[in-house]
Amino acid sequence: MKIYFAASIRGGRQDAELYKELIAFLKEDHQVLTEHIGDNLVTDEGEKNLSDKEIRDRDIAWIVESDVMIAETTRPSLGVGYELAYAEFLQKPVIILHRQEVSPLSAMIAGTDYFDKIFYYSNFDEAVKILESELT
Amino acid sequence: MKIYFAASIRGGRQDAELYKELIAFLKEDHQVLTEHIGDNLVTDEGEKNLSDKEIRDRDIAWIVESDVMIAETTRPSLGVGYELAYAEFLQKPVIILHRQEVSPLSAMIAGTDYFDKIFYYSNFDEAVKILESELT
Repeated sequence: MKIYFAASIRGGRQDAELYKELIAFLKEDHQVLTEHIGDNLVTDEGEKNLSDKEIRDRDIAWIVESDVMIAETTRPSLGVGYELAYAEFLQKPVIILHRQEVSPLSAMIAGTDYFDKIFYYSNFDEAVKILESELT
Repeated sequence: MKIYFAASIRGGRQDAELYKELIAFLKEDHQVLTEHIGDNLVTDEGEKNLSDKEIRDRDIAWIVESDVMIAETTRPSLGVGYELAYAEFLQKPVIILHRQEVSPLSAMIAGTDYFDKIFYYSNFDEAVKILESELT
């Protein structure tokens, strides 16, 4: 499957290493369109070789192309909220992974009926079990 | 005018006092549907007397009812990103206020052509001048 992995960039890169591990796991059996989100060299300043419009238009094209969006929502992010709404409008399947002990999930996301696959987890191993179950 | 003021709740309440002042200013000449966003008693746990679904459905109804969305985007927030996408889909006018010295604005927002009223500002007085100019 083609996966759009959504997670914080300019909202904060505290979890970049976790994103990298999740993307590496997903790549074992699937194509991850947004592989750069796990790149340690991408800071909270974002991708420096592209304009904001280039980034946005590429990311929207990837959402359209994707079979499923997997969003790690623990670090609040305007971009991830925007992308989740886009996935809803395009009726793309969405899997949300959230570490509730780190931050509360937005009511706008948790309260949207369309997002019916919200999984609260604590660590990488739990996330892998959820994804193995959901992606088979 | 009916204003949907969007700003961080569960993403963090560091700027709650600023939201309160902006809402008080807007209320001099307009109706602010989301007045609770400036309430000091609302913490990052959100509104405790409503379910997430009740909050989400009420907020979407307010976006539909509003004449304009004013979003303070400095504190990264999934909810605000989601609301901005909704305003775009509904073709509601949007004014974005962002304090660039505190955090970089998401490329997904800054790079979206529809959001053509993004104002970078530093303090309450500057925000008031922008809003006075835009809302007359």
